[in-house]
Order: sequence, then structure tokens, then C-alpha cells
Amino acid sequence: MINSMILDLNRNGSAIRAMFEEGAKMAKEFGRENVYDYSLGNPSVVPPQEIRDTLLDIVANEDENVLHGYMNNAGFEDVRTAVADHLNAMYGTAFTSRNILMTVGAAGGLNVILKTLLNPGDEVITFAPFFGEYRNYVRNYGGVLVTAATDPETFLPVPAVLAEAITPRTKALIINTPNNPTGVVYPESLIIEIAKVLEEKQKEFGTSVYLISDEPYRELVYDGVTVPYLTKYYRNTVVGYSYSKSLSLPGERIGYLVLPDELTDADEIIPGAAAANRILGFVNAPSLIQKTVGRCLDAKVDVEIYNRNRELLYGKLTEYGFSCIKPQGAFYLFVKAPDGDDKAFVAAAKKHRILMVAGTGFGGPGYVRLAYCVSYDMIERSLPGFAALAQEYGLR
Amino acid sequence: MINSMILDLNRNGSAIRAMFEEGAKMAKEFGRENVYDYSLGNPSVVPPQEIRDTLLDIVANEDENVLHGYMNNAGFEDVRTAVADHLNAMYGTAFTSRNILMTVGAAGGLNVILKTLLNPGDEVITFAPFFGEYRNYVRNYGGVLVTAATDPETFLPVPAVLAEAITPRTKALIINTPNNPTGVVYPESLIIEIAKVLEEKQKEFGTSVYLISDEPYRELVYDGVTVPYLTKYYRNTVVGYSYSKSLSLPGERIGYLVLPDELTDADEIIPGAAAANRILGFVNAPSLIQKTVGRCLDAKVDVEIYNRNRELLYGKLTEYGFSCIKPQGAFYLFVKAPDGDDKAFVAAAKKHRILMVAGTGFGGPGYVRLAYCVSYDMIERSLPGFAALAQEYGLR
Repeated sequence: MINSMILDLNRNGSAIRAMFEEGAKMAKEFGRENVYDYSLGNPSVVPPQEIRDTLLDIVANEDENVLHGYMNNAGFEDVRTAVADHLNAMYGTAFTSRNILMTVGAAGGLNVILKTLLNPGDEVITFAPFFGEYRNYVRNYGGVLVTAATDPETFLPVPAVLAEAITPRTKALIINTPNNPTGVVYPESLIIEIAKVLEEKQKEFGTSVYLISDEPYRELVYDGVTVPYLTKYYRNTVVGYSYSKSLSLPGERIGYLVLPDELTDADEIIPGAAAANRILGFVNAPSLIQKTVGRCLDAKVDVEIYNRNRELLYGKLTEYGFSCIKPQGAFYLFVKAPDGDDKAFVAAAKKHRILMVAGTGFGGPGYVRLAYCVSYDMIERSLPGFAALAQEYGLR
Repeated sequence: MINSMILDLNRNGSAIRAMFEEGAKMAKEFGRENVYDYSLGNPSVVPPQEIRDTLLDIVANEDENVLHGYMNNAGFEDVRTAVADHLNAMYGTAFTSRNILMTVGAAGGLNVILKTLLNPGDEVITFAPFFGEYRNYVRNYGGVLVTAATDPETFLPVPAVLAEAITPRTKALIINTPNNPTGVVYPESLIIEIAKVLEEKQKEFGTSVYLISDEPYRELVYDGVTVPYLTKYYRNTVVGYSYSKSLSLPGERIGYLVLPDELTDADEIIPGAAAANRILGFVNAPSLIQKTVGRCLDAKVDVEIYNRNRELLYGKLTEYGFSCIKPQGAFYLFVKAPDGDDKAFVAAAKKHRILMVAGTGFGGPGYVRLAYCVSYDMIERSLPGFAALAQEYGLR
């Protein structure tokens, strides 16, 4: 028998990935222009021009054995220093290269920090709905994912519910703002309350509860909203960042962890995370793209393109009678299944060649996720299908 | 308390990595030209020109959202097909894209297949001496690494010793030829004997024992030696390959797994390994370099440069009285510590600013490993130090 967790995944794999594969098949059958695939968070906006220019420059001019060679498991020293300096300039923090571990995307970074922190049986809390992979990442290290419900009207965490969920076995809380799948951004006042709960519970139980902030969508915000930098609110904060969305480079697998000196056990965690990066088989973040992002720290994709998509899709869906919070970040809409059955809603949409993902996999049954990191044109072409769906559900 | 395995690693980390870091420090103190660092297998030969040309072409001309975007977790379909076709042309195999999973180097690939196969308590055998990271990779998934001694004169596996080591809990045998740290290449006759033992034990215990062939050094062979392609000798073979050495791209983290249709439970293992690639946080092999190697499958570094290093270092060390098997592959010499104390030998060499790694970490106490993927010039400059060492040990 092969690994039991992998057997489970073969039976009940990623709904997102399954839909992505199905979309590719349907595109072959009906033509790509007739399939409206909202399943995967695969950025549609091109990377900033600076990325292409920098790649060309580095490949043409750098010493190849350095550029493509092994470096410290934590990453190139110059890149780590540049990232630390950039964070300090943006957020008034005081990081050095020691606090930055370059990772194979945010998924790599989360696995590294969970491997570093968890012993079997440790609990990790997250707020539902949540990115379904957290369940796998935590289980990889023998941990137990515990979900804390959010306010059903706002999808914002409820401090009292969090307090209730923390036990002496709680090792970490993963938060994700801007949020996948809801698109909500937690306001500063809420961050302060969450930090207070964590402090109190650490004291009550005599434990360390690490706040792991999963931030691939930090730069994708709308309406002038700001995303608080969490290390400033709570000492035991680890930040996991990815350039997948901010620079449209998800396939390149590049991101970093911030491991502040203020962490309890920082002197074990910082070298331990570099060791985890090595032994999990990442070894180091890919070198050429690592050098490249290190030189493009101020670059950003054109967020206005996603904003136009958001306005169009949100506007039309609500006009048709669907219910949905207007997201302030990321590139997802989390739409209520009109009759509460998300799987049936996904199936009904598929008849109109609209692909979306059931909320059940995100711990948010009764909703579906639409990733609007697609072309404006595709959204427009999909609208008759949504209108017909609304009619089928008696919404108009 | 953080993870107990990570705490262990913080106490007893990678001897190779520690020496690599020490080398960097000593280079600052004594000048880079006065430190003779044989610690790390970081290729010194430049990548083939084709790599730079292909990178420049792809970056300049490919659709950026495809090039840097998510693809199937197993890799780009066109790259997987190209790899399968290339293997078929070279080895007379019959793989298709379904049998190829692009990975984050061989280290990523080994973690993926071990995650896919192992349940806690499963045993994985390897022949000592061995690449020390196998211990960590197996432990990551709750497995137990069992070592089988090799012939002390040749470092070749002994089939009877292997047979003895296999139990009903044995899930896999990892072999590594050309071998790190000894440089030996297993002859075809031995592969046939190993396959026979595995077949017999599968039958005896009614189990599946997977042969995992870790092949980062496949192309680095000398004296016209050939390395048998193992899927042809034993049905339950998984190959882990890396371009780190053959194309001098270790920092880029690119390789692949071959998962033949003939594997017992192939229909679980093939999708399961793609799921493991995803949930371990790799998600997919880095996209730009994946596309690049897919177009450079016939490229190879100039192995003659390593061969000259081998001849010089092997020739001089044996002339000075040190004992060492002449390696036929990879870029390592595994040299006997004259008095049997490898750690003392490493310390004595360090006084001559020669950095090498004690064999203990490779399950080969009494020996030291020298990675000769360095400049010819560095080897020449280090020779007086080796001569002095030989004198200290009374060898000349």
C-alpha cells in the first residue's frame, strides 16, 4: 500500500486542480473561447516589463556558475538583504538578511515553517473559509487543522471564536489577508484584537502560538485599502510571501519567509527553517528567478486590470440577483449558491461552460469561488451564461 | 518546543553545508585563492552555451503568462513529452509524458516519491556509504533508513547483504550510481543480481519493493563506462534525475521522476506523485528553467574538465601515499583517513586550508570525501598542503 494520505488525495483530490484540468479538456472540445474558466488563481495580467528586462540582463551578463549554482540554503545573501531593506522601507521594520529565507513560493514557505514548528498532534488554527491546501500542509507534519468560523455576513474573524479554539496544543494560527477565497481584507482594529487574544492565550497556557501570515495577495488590493504588516502587531509572527500574484510568476515558484528575531526560539527557528528548506528537497529557492525578483522589488503588476474585472463581474452578478461580498483584495469572488447547494450550483454552471469551484473544499459550503484573474473579454462572454443561471434559479 | 527532527538537525546539521559555510568564512579571512574547498558538490564547469542561448530566446519570445504561469502539477506537457522521447531514444524505453513528473531537482523528486510511497514505520534500504540526506528524506515521512554494507575493497553492493536487509516492512531500496560519495559505478552484472534479489524478496514476502534510482551523476562518467538504465532490469523502478550536474544548474532546482506504467500500483502512484508534488509545496518544477531544459536535452557540460581534475587529484594523492579507489563517475574522491579517524583527518587538513567532509556523515567512517568539481588551478595550489599532510601522517 502506498501512503494513506496520498491515497486519500487520489480519491478526493484538489477540486481546484480537477476543475483546471477539466477546463483544459472542455477547451479542446468546445474551443477555448467558449469555455469560461474561473477555477484557478493563475494570473492573467502580464508580469511587469522589468521582469523580462532583468531576466535578459542577468542571463546575458552574470557569472553562470554563481547565477545557477548552489548558495546558502536560505538564499543569496544580496537578495535577502535587498528584500529586508525593501520591507524596512515600506513598513518601518528592522529586518536584516538573517530574517529572510527565500522559498519555493508561498506553498514552499508554509511547508518549511510548518515542518520547523510542528510536532505530531500539534494544532494549527485557521479561519474558515480558507485555502484548502492548508489542510494538507498541516497534515504533512502530523498536525491537526482546526477551523474557526468567521462572521457569516462579513467573513471576518471573530476574536471570541478564536479564543475558544486555542488550546494548550495550539502551535500556530494561519491567517490570509487579503483572503482566498473571500477577497476580504482584515482591518487594523481586528488585527489588534487577534493579537490580544493570542497574547492572552500564550500567557494563560504558558505556550508559544505563532501567527503565520500567508500573504500572496498583499499587493492586490482595491479601493485604497491598506493591509497592516503583522510583525508590528504581534511578536510571534512569521510572514510567508510569494511573488506569484504581485509579479504574475506563479510557475516560477519564488517567495520568502520573514522570521523576525523577536520570535520565541528565533535562534532555533531561523537556522531550523533553512535546514527544513534543505531536507524537504527544496534545497534553495530557484536561483535565476531569485536574483531577478531581488532586483525588481518595486515592480508590481497592473492591479487596475483586476479591479476592472472585479467591478464588471461583481456588478453584473449582483445585478442578476446573486449574493456576494464585494471583495477588497485578491482576485476572487465568493458567491452564495442561491439554494445553498454549492456542488449543484457548480454543476449547473458547467452546463453553461462556466467553471467555478465549490466552497466546500474551502470550508465554506453553500458558496462557490470565482477566480477573476481572467481576461475582461472572457468575463463579458460569460455573462449570458450567468444571466441564464440566474433565471434557472429564479433570481430574475 | 519546535519540531524535534529540526532540533536534531540544528545540533547535528549537514557536515557538507557546515563546511561550505566555513569555507566562505575562511575565504574572507585568508583570501579565496588560499582556501582549497573540496566540501560541496557545486559544479565548477560552466553550463553549455545552449542554456544561455535558450534562456535568452525563451524569455524574449514566449508568451509570459504561459512561460511563468501555473501548469499541470506534473509539468508542462510538451516538456514531459520531450523528456520521454529523449529517454526512449537513448535507452530504448517506451515512456510517454504520463511517466514523467518534472521536479524541483532530484532532492525534490526523492521527497515526492518517498511521500507517495511510505507509511510510518516503512523501511528504506540504501547501501553505505551513501548521500547523508537520504536519512532526512526518509525520516520526513516516518520511514526508517536501513543501511546495507558494501564490499570494503570496491564499495560495490553485496547481493547477499541486501537480501539479508530486506524485511516485510521494506518499501524501497535507494541506489545511487555513479555514487556519491565514492564515485563508483555499478556494473550491469551487479544490477542484474540486485534485481534478482528484489524479485525473490517481493515473492517471498508478497510485498512490493520499489527500486529508487537516484541519478544526478548519470552523465558524469569516465573511461568509457556505461551506466545501465534501471527500468529495463527491474519492473518496480522509479528513476530520480537532476540537471544539476549534467547542465551545471544546481541552484535552479530542476529534475524529473520517471514513473513507469509497469510499477505495481502505477495508477495510484502516478497521480499520487503529482499530488505529492503539489501538497509538499513544490506545486510544480520552476517554469522557465523547465521549458529551457526541455529544449536542451542533448546538451551536456564538458565532462573532460572533471576528468582532468580526477586524474590530477587521484594521481597526486596516491603518489603521496593516500589510499583511494579510482572513481569512474561523479566528481568525488573517497579517501581513506590514514589512521582511520576521518574527523581528525578533516581537522588536520583544515590547518592547510583544505576543506573536505568526514565520511561519518555518509555512513562511511574512516574516509573523507573530496568534491573535485573545482578549478584545476585550485587543485594544483592545494597539492603542497596534501603533500605536507602525507608527511604528517608518515606516508612519505
